[in-house]
Amino acid sequence: MDEIAADPSHPRYASLLMRHRLEAAAKRGMLADSAMIAHGRGEAFDYLLGERTTPSARLAGAEAMHRLWHAQRPVLSLNGNVAALAADDMLRLASRLGCPVEVNIFYRTPERMNAILSYIEERKKVLGLDVVVLGDAPNAAIPGLKGPRAACHQEGILDSDVILVPLEDGDRCKALVAMGKTVIVIDLNPLSRSAQQASITVVDELSRALATMLAWDEGEMPEAYDHQTVLKDAHKAMLDGLSDA
Amino acid sequence: MDEIAADPSHPRYASLLMRHRLEAAAKRGMLADSAMIAHGRGEAFDYLLGERTTPSARLAGAEAMHRLWHAQRPVLSLNGNVAALAADDMLRLASRLGCPVEVNIFYRTPERMNAILSYIEERKKVLGLDVVVLGDAPNAAIPGLKGPRAACHQEGILDSDVILVPLEDGDRCKALVAMGKTVIVIDLNPLSRSAQQASITVVDELSRALATMLAWDEGEMPEAYDHQTVLKDAHKAMLDGLSDA
Repeated sequence: MDEIAADPSHPRYASLLMRHRLEAAAKRGMLADSAMIAHGRGEAFDYLLGERTTPSARLAGAEAMHRLWHAQRPVLSLNGNVAALAADDMLRLASRLGCPVEVNIFYRTPERMNAILSYIEERKKVLGLDVVVLGDAPNAAIPGLKGPRAACHQEGILDSDVILVPLEDGDRCKALVAMGKTVIVIDLNPLSRSAQQASITVVDELSRALATMLAWDEGEMPEAYDHQTVLKDAHKAMLDGLSDA
Repeated sequence: MDEIAADPSHPRYASLLMRHRLEAAAKRGMLADSAMIAHGRGEAFDYLLGERTTPSARLAGAEAMHRLWHAQRPVLSLNGNVAALAADDMLRLASRLGCPVEVNIFYRTPERMNAILSYIEERKKVLGLDVVVLGDAPNAAIPGLKGPRAACHQEGILDSDVILVPLEDGDRCKALVAMGKTVIVIDLNPLSRSAQQASITVVDELSRALATMLAWDEGEMPEAYDHQTVLKDAHKAMLDGLSDA
C-alpha cells in the first residue's frame, strides 16, 4: 500500500484501501482476470453517487437485514471480489445471523476456489468467529445454469430461502430468483441486470453497504421497501452527481 | 479470448477485444496493478457515452490531427495501457506523421519498461513500419515532476512542441502543459484532471479515437475547436446517456 493509502485522513483513503485489498487478493490467486475491471466500473458509478450511502441505499440495507434476520435458511454467497474486499464483514454478518457463507464463483477453477477458501478460513481464525464455510465440495446445481457455474451446496445456496449475493453476475442472479428465493444484491450500477432482477438491491459500495447492514438490529422494522423506487432513487442520485460534477 | 470475443458480430465484441488485449499485456508484465481498474472506470464512462464517437469527439480528433500534422516536433507517448490496447494504431499514426513514439510510464520499473518496449518493437516488425521508438535510455526530465516519473528523452518528449498522451495521469498532463506544449489527451472522463488541463481532449474510447485521427488527412481543415465546449458536450452526452438508460 502506498503512502496515501496509509493515511486514513486522505480523501481517497477508502478507495485506495479497497484497491490495496484487491491487489493483495490478486497476488493470492483469488481473482478472475475481469475482477479489477469490474471494480473499476464500480468505482466510476460510486464517483457518480458521491461515494456516500444514499437514504434509499440505507433503506434497502435495512430491508435486506430484516429479510435475513427473518429467513428460515439464510446464506451469504462470496465470490473472489467479495472475499477480497469484505471477507471480515461477511463473516461478521454470518456469525450474527448464525448462517453459513458459501464461496461461489463464476469462473470456477480449483486453484481460485482453494485460494478464496483458505483466505476465508484464515480470516475466520483471526476474527475468532464460528461460521460454517461452504464451497469446497458442491453437491447440487442451480437449475438454469450450465457447467461449473451451476455448482453449489445443497445445505447452503440450494436450500436457502434468502440469499445475499453481492457483486453477482446477472445470469446467476436471474437463476436464483427463478428458484423462488429472496435474492439480495449489492451493486453500484442500478441499471445492471443483477440490480434489476434481484428482490432487493443495495446500490452502494460493498463495505459501506455491509456497514449499514451490520448496524441494523434484529428487532428493528424497516420502512416499506419498493424495488423500483429504490433503483430509480439511485439512478437519480447518479444523474444529480454527474450533473453537478 | 472466450467464445463471445471471437465473434465480431457480438454486441460486446469491441469491449471484450480490449479486455483480451489487456489480459494478454498483463501476462507479459506490461501493466501496473492499477491498469485494469483504470480500464474498468473508462468502460463505465464509455457505457454512459453509448460506446460511440460523438460529433464533438470527432471534432477534437480532427483538431488533434491538424495540430500534429503541423507540429515542428510531434511525439506520441505510450504507457502500458496504451501499448496494450492500441500499439498498432499508435505506430501507424507515428509512421504517417514521421515522428517518434516514446514509452513513458507513471509507475516506472525496468521490467515493465522492457516488457512494453519489446512488445512495441515486436508490433513494429509485424506491421513493417519504420518508427523511432524511444524510452529505453531517458536523458532528460520533465520539470515539476519528481523521481522516475519525470524521466523522458530530450529528442522525444522534452523537445516536442505537440504531444499526444492518451490515458495520461493528471500531474504529468499538467507538467507538460506548463512546459508550453500543445498537449493532446484521449480520456473517457471529461471531468478528469487530464481532460480538463489538456490543450485538446478527445473524449472517446482509445481505439475509436485513433481510428478517427487516422482517417483525417493532412490537407483537411477542422472546424473551430473550443476546449471547454468540447468537454461540456461530452459531459452532456453522458448525462443524456445516463438519463435515457
